[in-house]
This record gives sequence, structure tokens and C-alpha cells, in this order.
Amino acid sequence: MRNPLSERIVEIPPSGIRKFFDVVSEMKDAISLGVGEPDFETPWHIREEGIYSLEKGKTFYTSNAGLKELKQEIAAYLSRRFDVTYDPDQELMVTVGGSEAIDIALRAMLDPGDEVLIPQPSYVSYVPCTILANGKPVIIELEAKDQFRLTKEKLLEKITPKTKVLVLPFPNNPTGAIMEAKDLEEIAKIVAERDLFVISDEIYGELTYGTDHTTIAAFPGMKERTVLINGFSKSYAMTGWRLGYAAAPAQILAQMLKIHQFAIMCAPTTSQYAAVSALRNGDGDVKMMRESYDQRRRYLMNAFKEMGLECFEPHGAFYTFPSIKRFGMTSDEFATRLLYEEKVAVVPGTAFGYCGEGYVRISYAYSLKNLKEALGRIQRFIEKLDRKE
Amino acid sequence: MRNPLSERIVEIPPSGIRKFFDVVSEMKDAISLGVGEPDFETPWHIREEGIYSLEKGKTFYTSNAGLKELKQEIAAYLSRRFDVTYDPDQELMVTVGGSEAIDIALRAMLDPGDEVLIPQPSYVSYVPCTILANGKPVIIELEAKDQFRLTKEKLLEKITPKTKVLVLPFPNNPTGAIMEAKDLEEIAKIVAERDLFVISDEIYGELTYGTDHTTIAAFPGMKERTVLINGFSKSYAMTGWRLGYAAAPAQILAQMLKIHQFAIMCAPTTSQYAAVSALRNGDGDVKMMRESYDQRRRYLMNAFKEMGLECFEPHGAFYTFPSIKRFGMTSDEFATRLLYEEKVAVVPGTAFGYCGEGYVRISYAYSLKNLKEALGRIQRFIEKLDRKE
Repeated sequence: MRNPLSERIVEIPPSGIRKFFDVVSEMKDAISLGVGEPDFETPWHIREEGIYSLEKGKTFYTSNAGLKELKQEIAAYLSRRFDVTYDPDQELMVTVGGSEAIDIALRAMLDPGDEVLIPQPSYVSYVPCTILANGKPVIIELEAKDQFRLTKEKLLEKITPKTKVLVLPFPNNPTGAIMEAKDLEEIAKIVAERDLFVISDEIYGELTYGTDHTTIAAFPGMKERTVLINGFSKSYAMTGWRLGYAAAPAQILAQMLKIHQFAIMCAPTTSQYAAVSALRNGDGDVKMMRESYDQRRRYLMNAFKEMGLECFEPHGAFYTFPSIKRFGMTSDEFATRLLYEEKVAVVPGTAFGYCGEGYVRISYAYSLKNLKEALGRIQRFIEKLDRKE
Repeated sequence: MRNPLSERIVEIPPSGIRKFFDVVSEMKDAISLGVGEPDFETPWHIREEGIYSLEKGKTFYTSNAGLKELKQEIAAYLSRRFDVTYDPDQELMVTVGGSEAIDIALRAMLDPGDEVLIPQPSYVSYVPCTILANGKPVIIELEAKDQFRLTKEKLLEKITPKTKVLVLPFPNNPTGAIMEAKDLEEIAKIVAERDLFVISDEIYGELTYGTDHTTIAAFPGMKERTVLINGFSKSYAMTGWRLGYAAAPAQILAQMLKIHQFAIMCAPTTSQYAAVSALRNGDGDVKMMRESYDQRRRYLMNAFKEMGLECFEPHGAFYTFPSIKRFGMTSDEFATRLLYEEKVAVVPGTAFGYCGEGYVRISYAYSLKNLKEALGRIQRFIEKLDRKE
């Protein structure tokens, strides 16, 4: 029998995040600080709205782009929170999480050989989805000295005549870096000058600490060049509902919608009804969770300082990205030994791109109690390593 | 500003089903026989299980491939109903409806230029998803004289050295055709001889009348060559839940899972819990709905006969596909005039491929009351056309 598989798909490595989870799920007393998922259950009023829709028998397809009232609430939210205006009928669509939106944006925009600039360390999907959409991923290596922000210089260095799209993954998973207005302004200028488009993955937008999230779409001339991606998973603790959205110029959105219609049909109906309640009545929940993450973030940063673990201060998402360079091992070795010797799971920085080497991702989407126990174990591990040096 | 769009995506026409819906939804007193969706609400015990999972706070991601207990129930179901054995850990994955499964199967299997045989008339996604996955769709034109089944001769005629995959869309949307064991046996033999693979879309498998559904995967040597696609939308009236699955050899499934992990993450969690109850306790519901569809099917066939509308007898899905050739107009003209003159929406056969010309799809996923009213209007319309002849 001949090979049933596409050559291209075989060459794409599976996500490096999973392998530690498989071990940790079988290990007694292990603590995982590995998962990129809120530890909160979805707020009750949101679940209630989902339940109510099921009771009423709302179990049918919605229109391909999503429920009209949900799209209207999304438009109102984007305007109210981020000062960008989208037409719910022509410029918004509801997707299966932010992930589907990333995939179909790339599929709608890329011709074979088009280059996509992907700042790393970043979320694991951008590179494979670019390859699957016939594009060529071009990595921009972000650095701790820049607070893992994308600088003008780093961007200019990688632009070629084949560059079409810049992925902007901020607030960033795994570093927790954000881009503030002054940073985005410089990027926006180059994007316009060089006639590029932006896929801005703002799924962690609400989880920004000490300042407000800014979207690049709000800068003059940028809305027409930007596919803004956001969703409910992180900000409303709604991961399992699989609900995100894309806001984009009508011309691009129409093509994304075509792919969505053929490959997905519509986002889950129950989730769409629930999400209406999230946007209408969920501001307090978002605030509560953000404050809670922020408390844990500060706790972690203090603990790292006390145990001498170097870490740039993250202002977004729910991750820290401490450097483990001084221990003279790879991040994979560090994470593996920490898991087997102290039963704490973290993710090696290299899971998010080669330039993540020397770092590990530690999530604080865990209760303070769990964090305290885990940090104690990490401290013990580090002390052991230091003694041997 | 340059063109933001992929050349390929722009060339793919949007689905021809939608345009009539947009008109009908604005038209007072219109009756739609157009939608491919059960008119039943999801059975209560299934909704109840979804509600219960929400009450318990099961709002988190499941593993990428789906809940273990759901995959086990799917394996048990496939064995019990269709006599095929799949390993729930290695050969099954839960998807966002059957549609996602079709898309990722093609993405996992096709190299540029690989030919995919697509019998038409058939569901609107196969051709665009093949093109998006870099494959070349090759149409096999099915005919009423063969009861719209795929024959050995028609298959052989279109196989070339570049052929890799055969899509097998039975029970068929829009014709209602099925493939019985004797038909599949001949196809299976050719597939094995010519070293092809099959994507078998069996989403309407449970809606087979007068005989039992047979899967090609059950024939000797075929399991290793087949991606079997099924789901909950049609058989359990769960369209809005967006839940399907793929069963495939481990080698293929692993690659499909990789795409799913990057592009979708996991199927909606609430839907997965509900689907467990569907498989455990839903046999009676499926039977009740099947009997109800069958009753309407027979009603329609009789009515067509009485009004002199030629129609091959469908034994699957919930569609009839009467010929309108004798009225001397295109199916698009027929459907348009029927909608504007009698306010009944049906879908032109050409929405499902060029060879659907001369037919319209009339769905019977509607109450007998609606069907009776609509059939009265269709009769009046036909009589008017006949008088003018």
C-alpha cells in the first residue's frame, strides 16, 4: 500500500507542549503549571444562558457568520473597550475559538511562497498553520532585553519583497510580553509603508496588568490591513466552549467566511447564546479574574526574585517566562528533571520556537495554594542544582 | 494597497445553497424546503446531559482527540451498528461536525496535484476543501438511470495515475441515493486494486430506509484505506452542537489530529458530554426520527407521482431530487420562479455540481403539515407551467 499521507503534514512536528502533559497526568502528586487555560470555571450567569438556550431547544445551526445578536455585542464590545468600529454584518464572524480564526485568516490570505513574519517565542499554531496554507514562516526572534516586544529594527530586518503578513501575538503566550501604544505605533508605520497585513492575535487582550490593552487596528489606516482575532476562552474562562471571533475588512472577512462555511459551518450554538451573556454582563467577572491573575503574577515575580530566578516582568496573559540559562542545561532538560525529580510540570521555552531556549514557561492560571506548593518544589530543585555547581 | 487575498480562495465560488435562504428569510409566508437540517429539537435526555455538565462546571478543554468516554462509546457504536472495529485511543477523533473531519482528512492526505474523485451531485464542501488542500477535484457524474449510485464503470473511467482519494458521499445529499453492500463490494475491489484511499462521508448513515446502512470500511482490506466520517448532527438532531468524528487507520488519524490540534484544539466540551448520552441512550430517538422521515418520504413520493413530477426513489438522508427537465428551464430558473411565484424555497440541483442541472433538491426535514402546504403550492406552480406548454 502506498503512503496515504501528505508530505507536508508529516514534516510538521506535533506541538511540544503535549508531551509533558501525558507524563504529568499519570504521575501521582504532580503539580502542573503547564496548561494554558484559566483555572476558573465559566462564570455562572454565562453557563446559565447556555443552559437556558438548551432548555428552549435552540439546538439548530446558526447562520455561518454567527448569531446576529452576538455579532452586535462583539461590535459594541470592541468599540467600548478598544475604540475600534466594526460592522457586525460585514466585518465580524464568530469562529471555533481563536485558533480557527488564525487558520482561516492564513488560508484566505496566502498564495504559495508568501512570507509570514512570526515573532517567537509565541503560540504553537502560527508556524504549522502558515505551512499548511502554503506560506513560508519567517521567524523574528524576540529577546528579553527588549522585554520580548517586537521592535522596529527586528521587524525591518526580516521584511523581504515576499513578505505579506505579520502575525502580532500580544499579549504574548508564553512570555507575557505586551505591546503598548508607543510600540505599536512604530510597527503600524512600517506595516503601512511596506504594504503588509497584520493578523493580530489578541486573545489575551483583557489580561493586561497595570495598563490597558491597545489594538494595532485602532491606529490610522490599520483597520483595513488588520485581521483582529479575539475570543472568550481566556478572558471569560470559556475554553471548552470553543468560541472566538475575527474582525476584519469586509473583503478579507468574506473569504474567511467562505472557508468557515465549507469547513466548519458555524460555531457551536449553545456557546454563542452563552457568549451574549458574557459580553452583556461579564465585565465584573473579567475584572475579578484579572485581579486574581495579577495577584498571582506578583506573587510569582517575588518568589522568583527571592530564589534568584531571573525573570522579565510580564504584563499580560497568565504566564511567566523565567530564564534557566545559569543552570547550564537546555530548557527541555530542566523541565524534564523538574518533572521527574520534583513532580512539577512546566513547559520548555523551545516549545514556542527555537529562541525560547534557556527559558521555561510557568503558568499562573492556578490557585495561589498550588502555586505556593509548586514554587517550594522549584526552589528545592534550584537549590539542589546550585549546590552541584 | 495591494490585494490581501489568496488567488485560490477568490476563485472558489461560495455555496449555491445560501442565496435562496437569504431571500426566503425576508419573505412573508414563504415555506422553505431548502435546509439540510433536521426539524426536530435535540432529544431532551441529550440536552439534559449537556446541561448537567455545565452545572458541574465542565467548561474546560478536553484532550485534543476528545473525551475518552466519548471515543469509547463511538467505538462501541461503530462496532454494534456497522460491524467495524476501531481502537478509541489510536483510531478515533472527535471533530467540529463532519465538516471539519472532511477538511482535515483532505489536508492530511493530499500533496499538490493529487486527484480526488468526487461523485456529484453531492455536498458542497468536497470540491472547495480539495482545492484548499492543494488537490485537484475530478468529478464523477452520477445519473438517475443508476439511481445516482457510483458504478464500477463510472469509477474506472476517471482513475488516472494521479488519483489518490475517492470521496464516497452516501447516503447522499442531495439525491438521497444509497450504496448497498453489493455496490460497495465492486467499488472496494477497484479501490484496493488501484491503491486508492476512501473518505467515506456517512453522516446520513442512520437515515437509511428499507435496508441497513453498510460502510465500505467493513469490507476486507478496506479499513486501512478508509477515513470513515460520521457525527451527531443528522441522526440525533444535533446540528448546532457541532460534533462529528473520524475513524481512520492510526497513521492517518495521527496526522489529522495534528491539524485539529493546531487549528481547532478540541471539539466543544458540552457537546461531547451530551453526545455520550446520545450514544448510550439515543437508539430509540434515532428510530423515532427515522420512522418519521420515512413517513414523509413516502408521502412526498406519492405526491410527486400524483402531480406527475418524475423522481427516483431515495432510500437515504432526508432529500428528494425530482427532475424538472420537462419544464424546459434550468433548475435555477425553476427554483427562482417557484420561490417568487409560490413562496416555496427549494435548492437548484446545480448547487451540488453541474450534473445536478435539471433537478431540484426538496428536503423532507419538515413537518407533514408544512410539506402538505408546500406540495400544494408546488402542484399549483407545475399546473401553471403545464398550461403554458
